[in-house]
Amino acid sequence: MNKVAIIGVGHTKFGRLQDKGLMDLLCKASLEALEDANTTEQEFDSVYVGAMSPAAFNNISGIASALVDRISLLPAAADHIKNGPASGGSAIKAGFQAIASGMSDFVLVVGGEKMTHITAPGYVTSNVATLTHPEAERRHGVSLPSLAGLLTRAYLEKYDAKLEWISDIAIKNHKNGALNPNAHFQRTIDSFMENAINKGKGTWENVHEFLMDDTINPIIADPLRLFHVCPISDGAASLVLCNAEKAKEYCDTPILISGIGQATDTQIIFEREELTTLKALRLCSNEAYKMAHKTPKDIDVAELHDAFEILEAVQSEDIGFFRKGEGAKAAHEGQTEIGGKIPINPSGGLKARGHPLGATGVAQVVELVWQLRGEAGKRQVEDAKTGITCNFGGFGNNILSFLVERM
Amino acid sequence: MNKVAIIGVGHTKFGRLQDKGLMDLLCKASLEALEDANTTEQEFDSVYVGAMSPAAFNNISGIASALVDRISLLPAAADHIKNGPASGGSAIKAGFQAIASGMSDFVLVVGGEKMTHITAPGYVTSNVATLTHPEAERRHGVSLPSLAGLLTRAYLEKYDAKLEWISDIAIKNHKNGALNPNAHFQRTIDSFMENAINKGKGTWENVHEFLMDDTINPIIADPLRLFHVCPISDGAASLVLCNAEKAKEYCDTPILISGIGQATDTQIIFEREELTTLKALRLCSNEAYKMAHKTPKDIDVAELHDAFEILEAVQSEDIGFFRKGEGAKAAHEGQTEIGGKIPINPSGGLKARGHPLGATGVAQVVELVWQLRGEAGKRQVEDAKTGITCNFGGFGNNILSFLVERM
Repeated sequence: MNKVAIIGVGHTKFGRLQDKGLMDLLCKASLEALEDANTTEQEFDSVYVGAMSPAAFNNISGIASALVDRISLLPAAADHIKNGPASGGSAIKAGFQAIASGMSDFVLVVGGEKMTHITAPGYVTSNVATLTHPEAERRHGVSLPSLAGLLTRAYLEKYDAKLEWISDIAIKNHKNGALNPNAHFQRTIDSFMENAINKGKGTWENVHEFLMDDTINPIIADPLRLFHVCPISDGAASLVLCNAEKAKEYCDTPILISGIGQATDTQIIFEREELTTLKALRLCSNEAYKMAHKTPKDIDVAELHDAFEILEAVQSEDIGFFRKGEGAKAAHEGQTEIGGKIPINPSGGLKARGHPLGATGVAQVVELVWQLRGEAGKRQVEDAKTGITCNFGGFGNNILSFLVERM
Repeated sequence: MNKVAIIGVGHTKFGRLQDKGLMDLLCKASLEALEDANTTEQEFDSVYVGAMSPAAFNNISGIASALVDRISLLPAAADHIKNGPASGGSAIKAGFQAIASGMSDFVLVVGGEKMTHITAPGYVTSNVATLTHPEAERRHGVSLPSLAGLLTRAYLEKYDAKLEWISDIAIKNHKNGALNPNAHFQRTIDSFMENAINKGKGTWENVHEFLMDDTINPIIADPLRLFHVCPISDGAASLVLCNAEKAKEYCDTPILISGIGQATDTQIIFEREELTTLKALRLCSNEAYKMAHKTPKDIDVAELHDAFEILEAVQSEDIGFFRKGEGAKAAHEGQTEIGGKIPINPSGGLKARGHPLGATGVAQVVELVWQLRGEAGKRQVEDAKTGITCNFGGFGNNILSFLVERM
C-alpha cells in the first residue's frame, strides 16, 4: 500500500458568511490548498467532496463535478461523499484509498457546507434528524440534540459528574477559538458575559452562574443549554494528498496520514450495549492506532467532534486518553487545555470553530496539519508531532479517526 | 495494486415497486449478493452505497450507516457515494480502491433508488435538473431531457441521421428487456402496438408509424418522444468485491474488474468543444482500455447509459465501437443486437430495464457479470468474455467506464 501524505491545506473562515455561496466556499478552500501544495500546475487525478446536504440546503447536485469545472481541474475524476457530519472524514478516506491503491497521484479533498442562509425554523435540525432511525426514533420526534441531552443525563448520573464540567469544555473551546482567526466564534465566554453586563442584562458572580441563567443560556435539550451545543455555520476546508514518497518534492513539511479507522454501530440508540460508551469510536480509533503503530500515549494533540460538549468528554475516554467516566473531570481540571496533558480541540472545536457539517472532518485534519507543522500561531501546542481526530457521522453510529504525524 | 474481482451479485426487479421502501430494496439486493458470494459469514470491511437523492426522495440520510445496521454487517465502514445517475458507478470505484489499496478485504457495493411513489408533478425531473449549471443553464429552464433533445437535433443534422434510427435503439432495448426477468418493461414495442390496436386506439402500418403517433408517443423534448426516454423506476443492484487472489475460494466464476476510467467535462454544455462528442467518455473509456490492456475490438458486450436513446448512439461511437456519426445507423442495421457485431444493452438498458438512478451503474456491471458467467438466460450473448460499461453522472460531464473480463 502506498503511504499517503498531506502536502497542502486550505480553510475558509467559518461562520455566518452571508455573501458567499456553497460553491464559492468550496472553490476558495480548494484553491488555497492547491497553492499551499505548490501543485497548481499539476494534473490532479481525483477530487473528493464531502458535504452532507447540498441538495437540500443549496439546491445543487453533482457538486464534485461542478467543482472540478469551476477550479479548472477537468478532466479529473470527481465524486461526492456523504456520511452525515462525517462526510468530510469519509471524503479524506476515499482520497487516501485512491492514492494508497495507486489509482491516483494527486487528490484534492474538500469538505464544506453552507447553511446559515436558511431561515425556515427547524429546517436544518430536521434535515440532520434524517440521520436517525426512521421508525424507531425519528417518528417519535427524536433529533440529534435530544439524543445528546439523553447522553448527558446518563453520563452525569452514571459517573457522578457535574454539568459544570461539561460547561468547562465549552469554556475551554471558546478560549481556544478566540485564538483561531478562522473560528466562527473568536470570543471567550467571559467576553460574552462582560458584554451582557455592559448591556445591563444582569450581573453574575462567575461564568458558570452566567451559563446557568435561563435568559442568557436557554435550555436546548435538557440539561444541555445553548452554550453546550455547536452553532450552525458556513465554511469549507481542504487537503491535497499525494504519495508520501513524492511529498518532499512539493512541500518541506508534509504530514503523513499514518492511521485511518472507520466503524459503525447500531443506528438505534436503545440497542447499544451502553449509552455512555461509543463502541464505534473504540473500534475505529484502535484501527487507526494499530495501523500507525501508536497508542493513545503517543498523541500530542486531538481534534474531537464536540457537536455537543458532552461528546468531547465521552470521546476523550473512548479514544483512549482517559478512563471511562473521567473525561469531563479531566477537562474540568484543565488536562485538555493547550499546555495540558492532552490538548483537545485547540482549534476551538465544533463549538467555537463552528460546524459546517461536511467541512468539519477536513477542518479537523487541517488543524492538526497546522499544529504538526508548527503553524498554529497563538494556539500552537508545543512541539506537537502526532495527532488524532474523531469525526461523527450520525449519533455515534458511523465514526472515523485519522492519525497524522510528522514525516 | 491488488487486483479486484466480483464474487457475488444481486439485483431486485426494477419497476414500479409500490410495496417496497428504499431500504427494503437496498437490503434485498445486498443479501442476494452476499448469498451469491457465499460470504454471508464473512467479516465485511466496507460498504459503499450509491444513490442520487435518498434525502429528497425518501427523507433518509446516512443510508450507508443504516444499511450496515439493517443487514447486520456492523461494524463495517459505510459510506454513501453520490455522482448523480452515476452514483452506482462511483460507488463501485470507491469499493474497488478500498480493495486495490489493501485497506479492505471484502466490500459490498450497492446502488439503489426509490422514486415512483413521488406524485408531485415534475419533482423528480426538477431534482435531477439540479445536476445542471445553476446560473448558465438551470435558471433558463434547462432540464436533462431538454439537453437530450438538443443533442438529438444536432446529431441528426450533423450526420444526416434519421430519428427512426434512434427509435430502432428503443425497439432493440425493449426487445432485450422482454427477455430480462428483472426489467421494468418486459415487453417489445410491437406488443405495446398490438395492445393499442386491440383496445381500438388506432391502426398503424408498422412500429415506426406507431412511434410517430402523437397520441401514443407524445413529444417529451422535441424531437424525442416518450419511447425515446427511459422511465422513472425503483430498484437496487449490488456487487461483492474481493482481492482477486482469494476470489476462487468463494466463487467458481469470479469476474475481474480489469479496467476503470472516470473523467469529467465542463458542466456547461455550450462550453464543450463539440455537442455531439462525449469527450469525458473518450477519456474514461481510454483509461479503462489502457488499464486492462484491451481495445474496443476486444469487447464482446456493452452496457451503455441510454437515459435517452440518442445517448446510446453517441456513446457507442465515443467508446470506440463505431466511427463518429455511425452509431445510430449501426443500431438501425442491427449491429448492436444480441448476435450482432457488438451487442449493446442486452439487459434492455435504461430504456427497458429501467433507471433507478443510483442502481444503474451497479446494474450494468451485474448484467455483464451474468453475461460473462453465461448466466444471462434468453438474452445471453454467446461466449461473452469481456464487457464494458458507460455510466453517466450529469449530462456527459462526469462519466465512468468499467471493463470486466473472465478470470
